[in-house]
Amino acid sequence: MNPPDLRIRRVAIDTWRENVAYLHRDCPVVRASGFQALSKVTVHANGTTISAVLNVVDDERIVQACELGLSEDAFARMNVPEGHAAHVAPAEPPASIGALHRKIGGERLSRDDLHAIVRDIAQARYSKIELAAFVVATNGYDLDRDEVLHLTEAMIAAGRRLDWQHQVRGGPVVDKHCIGGIPGNRTSMLVVPIVTAHGMLCPKTSSRAITSPAGTADTMEVLAEVELPFERLTQIVRDTNGCLVWGGRAGLSPADDILISVERPLAIDSPGQMVASILSKKIAAGSTHLVLDIPVGPTAKVRSMPAAQQLRKLFEYVADRLGLHLEVVITDGSQPIGSGIGPVLEARDVMRVLRNDPAAPADLRDKSLRLAGRVIEFDPDVRGGDGWRIARDILESGRALAQMNALIDAQGRRLQPPALGEMTHEVIAPADGAVSAIDNLQLARIARLAGAPQVIGAGVDLLRKQGDAVQAGQPLYRIHACYAADLGFSRDLAARDSGYTVAATTRPS
Amino acid sequence: MNPPDLRIRRVAIDTWRENVAYLHRDCPVVRASGFQALSKVTVHANGTTISAVLNVVDDERIVQACELGLSEDAFARMNVPEGHAAHVAPAEPPASIGALHRKIGGERLSRDDLHAIVRDIAQARYSKIELAAFVVATNGYDLDRDEVLHLTEAMIAAGRRLDWQHQVRGGPVVDKHCIGGIPGNRTSMLVVPIVTAHGMLCPKTSSRAITSPAGTADTMEVLAEVELPFERLTQIVRDTNGCLVWGGRAGLSPADDILISVERPLAIDSPGQMVASILSKKIAAGSTHLVLDIPVGPTAKVRSMPAAQQLRKLFEYVADRLGLHLEVVITDGSQPIGSGIGPVLEARDVMRVLRNDPAAPADLRDKSLRLAGRVIEFDPDVRGGDGWRIARDILESGRALAQMNALIDAQGRRLQPPALGEMTHEVIAPADGAVSAIDNLQLARIARLAGAPQVIGAGVDLLRKQGDAVQAGQPLYRIHACYAADLGFSRDLAARDSGYTVAATTRPS
Repeated sequence: MNPPDLRIRRVAIDTWRENVAYLHRDCPVVRASGFQALSKVTVHANGTTISAVLNVVDDERIVQACELGLSEDAFARMNVPEGHAAHVAPAEPPASIGALHRKIGGERLSRDDLHAIVRDIAQARYSKIELAAFVVATNGYDLDRDEVLHLTEAMIAAGRRLDWQHQVRGGPVVDKHCIGGIPGNRTSMLVVPIVTAHGMLCPKTSSRAITSPAGTADTMEVLAEVELPFERLTQIVRDTNGCLVWGGRAGLSPADDILISVERPLAIDSPGQMVASILSKKIAAGSTHLVLDIPVGPTAKVRSMPAAQQLRKLFEYVADRLGLHLEVVITDGSQPIGSGIGPVLEARDVMRVLRNDPAAPADLRDKSLRLAGRVIEFDPDVRGGDGWRIARDILESGRALAQMNALIDAQGRRLQPPALGEMTHEVIAPADGAVSAIDNLQLARIARLAGAPQVIGAGVDLLRKQGDAVQAGQPLYRIHACYAADLGFSRDLAARDSGYTVAATTRPS
Repeated sequence: MNPPDLRIRRVAIDTWRENVAYLHRDCPVVRASGFQALSKVTVHANGTTISAVLNVVDDERIVQACELGLSEDAFARMNVPEGHAAHVAPAEPPASIGALHRKIGGERLSRDDLHAIVRDIAQARYSKIELAAFVVATNGYDLDRDEVLHLTEAMIAAGRRLDWQHQVRGGPVVDKHCIGGIPGNRTSMLVVPIVTAHGMLCPKTSSRAITSPAGTADTMEVLAEVELPFERLTQIVRDTNGCLVWGGRAGLSPADDILISVERPLAIDSPGQMVASILSKKIAAGSTHLVLDIPVGPTAKVRSMPAAQQLRKLFEYVADRLGLHLEVVITDGSQPIGSGIGPVLEARDVMRVLRNDPAAPADLRDKSLRLAGRVIEFDPDVRGGDGWRIARDILESGRALAQMNALIDAQGRRLQPPALGEMTHEVIAPADGAVSAIDNLQLARIARLAGAPQVIGAGVDLLRKQGDAVQAGQPLYRIHACYAADLGFSRDLAARDSGYTVAATTRPS
């Protein structure tokens, strides 16, 4: 007698990249095998096998005893219709669990170990708990540089890889990336129009915000479509030299997308994982030349110049061995860049710079020109040191704005641009003085509680930056929200800690 | 305008000690605040606040937009009726998350840090992912002995504490514990009747199986009730000097129960966590004197004598500082103890020893007498070295059996003892020779797939032990199951690796 088949049922619960199987407590398989909650099981149907974590259910409205419920992720991965027959068995541990345990025990992993782990992660064979164990065991500098190299290689191997060489015929495919952590730092939306206007190929795929109030994809979405099918994306790049789209659909580094799902709630972003995540995605996207921005500051991801140099060398070591031409630029990360934090506000800042509007934030303009200049110098025909001037000419002449409009039209212009949140609250200076510090992390938290990035009109508009004089009662920044609840959460947090330090200015005697 | 109240709904999903909140994607709070899957939220109702992990739901049969679904764990903890008004807010990270991050970074934690972490864990403020991070960051010898001491202290402080001093009036309250890992090792069910027959107080609370095919509580349940209300338990101890019950209801170390929920699926059982878990529960249960069994063998939890000595010293360091009188006994863990593996089979072995049945396994009898003898020597009136002889006399005279029957009757005798699984499969010797090794881990896995411990009649009956001669085709062990599916899973695993090594015996020349 074989175990009876179950009928598959979709359980519309979003378990965030974890396969969950729901079985009723009276299901014969649960009674027979004594599966417990959190047991790992394998589900077989129609030639496909997935592994999943078991949740035991006592409500027939969710699953009946003859059914096998699958969470959204598991149902999508299984790819058979509801009602299809399936059977369930206790799961063997993923093949790479031995390697995970060796890493937890402090051992160095081989190339084969890391490939096996990444393959199992990409195939969704790891539970959330096992992913968390991997993230913690490889935290800090617990991965040496060869382990990081092998992790990066494995992440590339586990996903899809784009190739633009038929288009550039040996020329560079350029990209620019920032390790993150600085609110308002939307330089990609200026660098891409400038360097593609210069004639370089820059097919930029970006992430949405992970822990920040806006990612480049979230901000570009204020202006244009960013979720494009792969064929349209390649057509746009052929027509305009570039794009500014969300990379999540491209399947470039699926293991990394899954790891991020536990790094985010754990707030762990260690050097090895960062290098593997960024470089695997760039290489999979077909880039040959990359300018990488590492901001340094007391509330940035990297807090000191020695730490930045150590991280820089790790990036260089891995990039060199994988044939990626990498230039690292260490920048000032002591405060947010630009004025706006949140998708609509950041898009406003970007368009002001492109329009050469006098209200454009100077720091965003200067930093973007500097980074675009470094990208332009990847052009073999450009003389070393000339990049910045070329970038400035492209911006001041309006060619960058024209190119941005071409990109927006190619991707699909948003006809009704979303409005800024109309519910506002101003945070004021407690005393006379000058702004001496702005806490990146606290401003990001305040903007997120205001609703950013999911509520795209929400965010924070900075009215003062470091060094600006301010009088008691004058506004430091304005919170924008679209819902009263969000304005309340955000205002309460700002009242506990505004994120601004205002120091009394010494009067000239 | 304040966020609207939601109505609480019980979602009958067993999420295994994690609070999960289910909100519909169209719920105003989800739309407003952009909560994401796996966001942490706080739920407030009727003066109670809990934290929970968010799952987003797209099916109104599970929750509607105006409802807040709570998993079984969360609903029980919230303790208000369905339909009660509640509101939800983004959760601040638990206060101790900073300390967790410092531990992940390799720092030493203070007493206050560890108390804060354990308090947050006991209050269910950690997600499964955060628990896994703590378990991995404190793995191996990553906790120094003072950190283990403070972790143990904190675990005791977070739970209930029993006190038997009014009964013993300064005399010892004794216990015996094994660190686990050896199938069939049911010595507690012999030690408790022997030492309580000697007149000592031994209120034994045991766990159910965590990763093994049977715990003492599972095996005792074959014979008697083991889930007793606290008042009945104390009455039984007053009447009979002892008990053999499940400790899970007593709330002795709630943080440990929660940590075990991730240690089990991760298969991590590190020295520091083991010492804190065992000693916190013993001290909370009111024990003053403990004999601790550390089995050593190639497939035991502790693989070498130096490792056993290192672990012994850690146990002694913590026990001494917490005023617990501890004797560590290092034993042979090279193979299972007794013949049966699984609740019904292990109960059979125990009763055979108590009845002085010639079929009783000699190794289980000998080891139990040795441990009982050490416990008896805690009695100030017993001369050093006399314990074993006293224990043997109690066993051989039938007084141990009479005492076991008294304990069973007091707890509630099971009138229809559960039967052994009738579906069987014999695993046979592949060649002539002698059994040279038995793999504890593999035999435990085979017994678990047969259904043990949830299916209490399931398990493995060992017909040969190390050193026994065997001919090709003769049985090594017999698998018992109650369901065909289980017999199949178990038989398949045994076919891949039987767990037995049969070495050719050299013929005398």
